[in-house]
Formats: sequence, C-alpha cells, structure tokens
Amino acid sequence: MIGKMLENVRNKRPLVHCITNYVSANDCANALLAVGASPIMADDKNEAEDITGICSGLVLNLGTLSENKIEAMLISGKTANAKDIPVVFDPVGVGSSKFRMAAAKKIVSSIKIAVIRANSAEVKSLLYSAASNSGVDSDDEIEADISNAKSLAKKLGCVVVLTGKTDVVTDGQSVYLVRNGHPMMKYVTGAGCQLSAVMGAFIGVNRSDVLLSALSAVCMMGLLGETAAKRLKEGEGSASLRTGIIDGLFLLTQEELEKGCKYEKYI
Amino acid sequence: MIGKMLENVRNKRPLVHCITNYVSANDCANALLAVGASPIMADDKNEAEDITGICSGLVLNLGTLSENKIEAMLISGKTANAKDIPVVFDPVGVGSSKFRMAAAKKIVSSIKIAVIRANSAEVKSLLYSAASNSGVDSDDEIEADISNAKSLAKKLGCVVVLTGKTDVVTDGQSVYLVRNGHPMMKYVTGAGCQLSAVMGAFIGVNRSDVLLSALSAVCMMGLLGETAAKRLKEGEGSASLRTGIIDGLFLLTQEELEKGCKYEKYI
Amino acid sequence: MIGKMLENVRNKRPLVHCITNYVSANDCANALLAVGASPIMADDKNEAEDITGICSGLVLNLGTLSENKIEAMLISGKTANAKDIPVVFDPVGVGSSKFRMAAAKKIVSSIKIAVIRANSAEVKSLLYSAASNSGVDSDDEIEADISNAKSLAKKLGCVVVLTGKTDVVTDGQSVYLVRNGHPMMKYVTGAGCQLSAVMGAFIGVNRSDVLLSALSAVCMMGLLGETAAKRLKEGEGSASLRTGIIDGLFLLTQEELEKGCKYEKYI
Repeated sequence: MIGKMLENVRNKRPLVHCITNYVSANDCANALLAVGASPIMADDKNEAEDITGICSGLVLNLGTLSENKIEAMLISGKTANAKDIPVVFDPVGVGSSKFRMAAAKKIVSSIKIAVIRANSAEVKSLLYSAASNSGVDSDDEIEADISNAKSLAKKLGCVVVLTGKTDVVTDGQSVYLVRNGHPMMKYVTGAGCQLSAVMGAFIGVNRSDVLLSALSAVCMMGLLGETAAKRLKEGEGSASLRTGIIDGLFLLTQEELEKGCKYEKYI
Repeated sequence: MIGKMLENVRNKRPLVHCITNYVSANDCANALLAVGASPIMADDKNEAEDITGICSGLVLNLGTLSENKIEAMLISGKTANAKDIPVVFDPVGVGSSKFRMAAAKKIVSSIKIAVIRANSAEVKSLLYSAASNSGVDSDDEIEADISNAKSLAKKLGCVVVLTGKTDVVTDGQSVYLVRNGHPMMKYVTGAGCQLSAVMGAFIGVNRSDVLLSALSAVCMMGLLGETAAKRLKEGEGSASLRTGIIDGLFLLTQEELEKGCKYEKYI
Repeated sequence: MIGKMLENVRNKRPLVHCITNYVSANDCANALLAVGASPIMADDKNEAEDITGICSGLVLNLGTLSENKIEAMLISGKTANAKDIPVVFDPVGVGSSKFRMAAAKKIVSSIKIAVIRANSAEVKSLLYSAASNSGVDSDDEIEADISNAKSLAKKLGCVVVLTGKTDVVTDGQSVYLVRNGHPMMKYVTGAGCQLSAVMGAFIGVNRSDVLLSALSAVCMMGLLGETAAKRLKEGEGSASLRTGIIDGLFLLTQEELEKGCKYEKYI
C-alpha cells in the first residue's frame, strides 16, 4: 500500500507549489525532484494564484516569514481550496513570535488544510491558540502527543502529523504511531520541511486517502534517515547524512519502502 | 578555444552580480567560485546600481520573483548596458504566471540582453509573448527547438541557449548543437541556474565572442554532469551528483574540457 | 580553555537568531546544529523583537540586504542590547554599495556590538566610514590588518575578528594571530558567514570572555577547513570540502580542538 503511494508519485510526477523559507528551500526542491515530483517555489502575492492553479499540491511553511509571504499563502490557499488541491501546512516555530501565531491563525481559519506537519511544541502552540484551551502536558510524552494531535485534528478537520522520537499520524479518529527515523536527523536543518514538501507530493496524487498518504511520507523520510545514518563512513557526520537522505530518496524502491516501514495502528 | 575561455575565467576572476532565486543561490555562488570567478548576490533596488557597476557580468534569474527584485533587475540591467557589462537572462518558469511574463517582457524590452538561457517551454513562452506570433510546435522536437531558438535570437538580437536533451546555441544565424549532459542532471534543482550563473562569468571575460563563450559554458556544465554521473558509487544518487558537479568544476582542466566537449556546427 | 568553550556550547545548546543572507543561510543553520547549538533564521521586522528575545545570541549579516532586513536588524539589535544578548556583526561586502555602508553605520552607531567578523577590505571600509579617517595601507599586509583591526575595535568598543591568510583577533588591546585555515576554504561560499553564525553560539554561552570565545571559534573553523582539505579523496573538490567542514564540526572533540589550534598572543 505504502509502496504503491510512492509509485503513484513517480508515475504522475506532481508539480508541488511550495511557499517556504529560504533556509531549506534548496533541500525541499531537491527532495521533491528525488522522489519523482516537480517543485515550484514562488512566494509573491502577484503570482500566487497562477502558480498554485497549475499544481497538484500546495505546501505552506512559516519559516523566514514576511508580510508578503503571508499574503501569498492566503491567496494560494484559497486558490487551492477552490480547485480541490490539497494543502500541507508546516507551522515552523509558530510559538516563537506573535507574528507567526497570528499568521497561523489566519491560515487555519480561512483555508481548509489537508495535513498539518509539526513537532510537539508547534502542535501544542496551535492547539492553545486555536481554541484558547489547553493542550495536554503529561509525564508520558507520547500520551500527551497523541492527545494533542487528535484534538488539533478534530478541531481543524484535518490530518495531523506530529513528528518526534515517535511520530503520531491522526485524523482525529484513527491514530498511527511511526517508529522510523534516526536521532541524527535533528542535526540536519529542514528535515521537517523536506517531509512537509514531500508530503505535498504524496497527498497530491493519493487524494482518496490523505491519512495513509501522510503516513507513507512519514515512514519513508524516517526510513531514509535510518538508512543514511547506517551508511555513514568514518569521518562523516550531519552534512553527509543530509546528502545521504536525498540520495536515498532518489534510489528508494517500493519494495524497500514496504519492507522498512515501522508503523502500528494505535487506535 | 573552449579551454582557453575557461582559462580566461580563472586568470581574470570576474566578479558576477546575480539577481537570482533563493532556491539555488548557494549552488550558483559555489559554482562561480569553483570555476574561478567571484559571485555577488544582491537583489535590492537600493544597491542594484552600485553592485552591478563593479562587476564584469550580470545574471538575471526570474525564480522566486518579487516586485522588489524586478525593480532591481531593471536598474541593474540599465547600469550594465550603460557600462557595457554583458547580461545573461534566465526566464525561469516564465510561462507559469502572468507576473513572470510581464517581468520578462519589461526586461527584454528595456535591457539589451547578451544571452538568454532557457528550456524549450520557456523559449516558446518568450517567443509567443514577445511577438504575439506563434512558436513552432513540431513532431520533431529538436527541429522545433532550433527554429524557436533562432527566432527568439533574431527578434531580441541576442544569443539564445536552449537547454534540453540536445542543447541549442544560436545567435539567430549560426546554430550549434551540444550533446553533452546526463539525464540525471534534471534531478538536481538549479542545474540550469548554475549554467546561467557560470555563463555570466564566461561572457564577462570573453566578450569578443559571446556565441562561443556561451557554447563553452554549455559544453562544460554538460560534461561535468556526465563525469559526475560516471563517478557515482553504489548508494549515491542525485544529491551526490550535485556535489560532484561542483567538485568537477573546481578540478576541471582546460585539456579535459577540450577533450570532453561534444558539439557540432549545425548551420 | 578552547575545548571547554566548545563543551559549553554543546552542554547549553544556545538558540541563535540569525538575520542573514539567503545564499549561505542553509550552511549557517547546519553549522549551528553541527556544533550543538540551535539556529533560528528570521528577518522580518514584525517578529524581530520576539525572536531575539528568546535567544542567547544574535548574528547580523549584511548579505542579500533589503530595507525590511535593516529594520529587523535594528529592532533585534536593540532587543539584544536591552537583554544583554551578545551581538555578532558580519558586514558582508560593506564596501560594495552605499546602501550597505549606510546600513552598517546605522547598526554600529545604534547597537552595541560584541564582535565584528570581517575580512581585510570590510574592516578597512568600516574604519574609513566610522571615523572619516583613514585605515592603514601597508606593504606589510599583516601589519596593516593588525593596525586596522585594533583601531576599529577601539573605536567601536568591541572585539574585531579579521579573517584572512592569518586571522587577527583583537579587543583593541590584546591581539591574537591565528594560523589555522586552508586556502581552499575561499572556494566555499559563506565560509565566513558560517564562522560568524558559530561565533554567535560561542559568545552566547561564554560571555565572561568575548575575546577568547571569538578566538576559539576562529581557530575551530580554520582547523575544520584544514582537516576537511586533508581528507579529500581523488576527484573531490570545493563542494566536498563544504560537506567535510560541517561533518567535521559535528564530530569534533574538545581534545582535537585543543590540539589543533594554532594561535599566538601577538600583543
């Protein structure tokens, strides 16, 4: 099933519009190319509608945010909604500034999001903000993550992908836990942004099941991190891991993906 | 001849002003350094004139376009024209939005361009737009490419470099076909942008023959893609190819370049 | 002592706010992660205060400058000063345009800078400008560098790190000379930007001795360049060096750093 979703990306070669930060834009573009999709990065309000309109997926990423980018995101989001193009939202550092939080609120209140991809803190920030009630803090980290991800998914009517040591993927009802990934991945900037970008391709061509296509992308990027870490030679570190992840994405077969996935249905 | 052009870049170390996108800016800068030139990336209208004025070449690239960048391009282009600094124009995705098309029209109508570096679709878009008459579509792709590249070159009085499976280099009269390159290069984002940037260095120091210096840069980047693909080891993919291309540019000798070029004079 | 400073970074994992250029932002973020710090890149005036306020260090870099970035730098700089967060200033290409020079003047006159990291020409430009009196030109390049770095340090009451063949680190009284580094490093774009970013982490957690923490960062990045150059295999060039520097930063031990440092107290 998951291998099939990768095959769909490679067969249909979706064009994915990313309004994203300039820190990881190059990695996101290379990841999209490596998986068999086509990236188009454009963040100006004057072309947001045109560009989104020719794409199969839209990815909104709050990194290196600016007023112009927010305008572009709102226009692109509305265009995507009108044309049934699925939207991935990556609220990078949403708790770090009032500016990002205000932008995130505007986005989730005016655009129908298909998938939110965020870390634990970002999910909590969105949850607190969206409902002015509290996210769960718990001694048991994974229980808190599952509860917060489910709450946010229900509140916004979307799939939430919370990435961390164990990843949580939920539509508010079902919950999958993913145990792919490698601790070294957190030393590569934009690993999360790359996942969000690639997810734009996956849900763009596998629209009948957003939950499972999001799950597939999470397993895949985690697996690539594991494989790249295993392949590191003496003297190689985080920069070689970064190269190895994209190399692996280029070479990955359906069979390897199916075989390497580590997920379980939790609920 | 082509090796000599590379030698000129290394001896004169031209400073090249790039007004370019943030997706491939890092690769363009590293490519310029590797070939022996110096990059300066600056895209604000407030410094466009000053920066272009101290450079030997100017490269205008439409990726991640904004209003501010367009203003900077127009100022820099005029400065370059006034000081006889050659201008390379890379109309990235010009057919993707009215905004890019309008910017491209303004650029080609108000700035004298030395070289346009574009793919087949972009050349066609510029041609349709520039003349409101049609580019050629043909069952024979390469014939259509040659015809469109020649028409655009004549119309704008510049050299056109159309890159694809076979590259076309023409000043509207003579036509060269280049058979260097490797299919994997299309999985590296900004490979075309890098070519445009490096071309800025080549024509900056080889002004007496823009056609042949553009041809040299095309052969060179294609050859580097071939060599880098050949050197890939098991487990290496598109990200290693990206590294290999810039490594190769750093190490390339005149002799290797002369020997590896695959071009023919078509007309 | 120098090894201890690296250990402090790894133990305290400082968050460093970089207002920087889009050419090397990815490398700066990866370098900060590799050394054990956390990067946050944000350059909009609307979030400058919030972001700086949660950080341990602030890095201002003039590359790909814009009006919006200047506003953000001024707000972030004042926030940093108010909260005793040390500021590193990297006046990239300050002599290249009146726009950059005016921005630099505004920054050094309104913000208390802890460290300026610049090359020889940039130090001279700042010195001429800041005082309308002349920097020293001398047949003996290193003597001129030392004199200019000391003058600028005294004038602005900060540490000046002048990087070149021999690096000069001075607070206007003491002068250290650093002989780490490798000639190939100048073929990697943003090597200086990475040093400035990493310096933000070093002075952020080693505030009691800004001079020595700046010295530590300089020695470290130079040593990494040497080591990465030594490890290059046949067919590898400047792009592999870039990867090798960040890999090395990830793997570097305190002991290797202590052992590899080549500095002397000059005055």
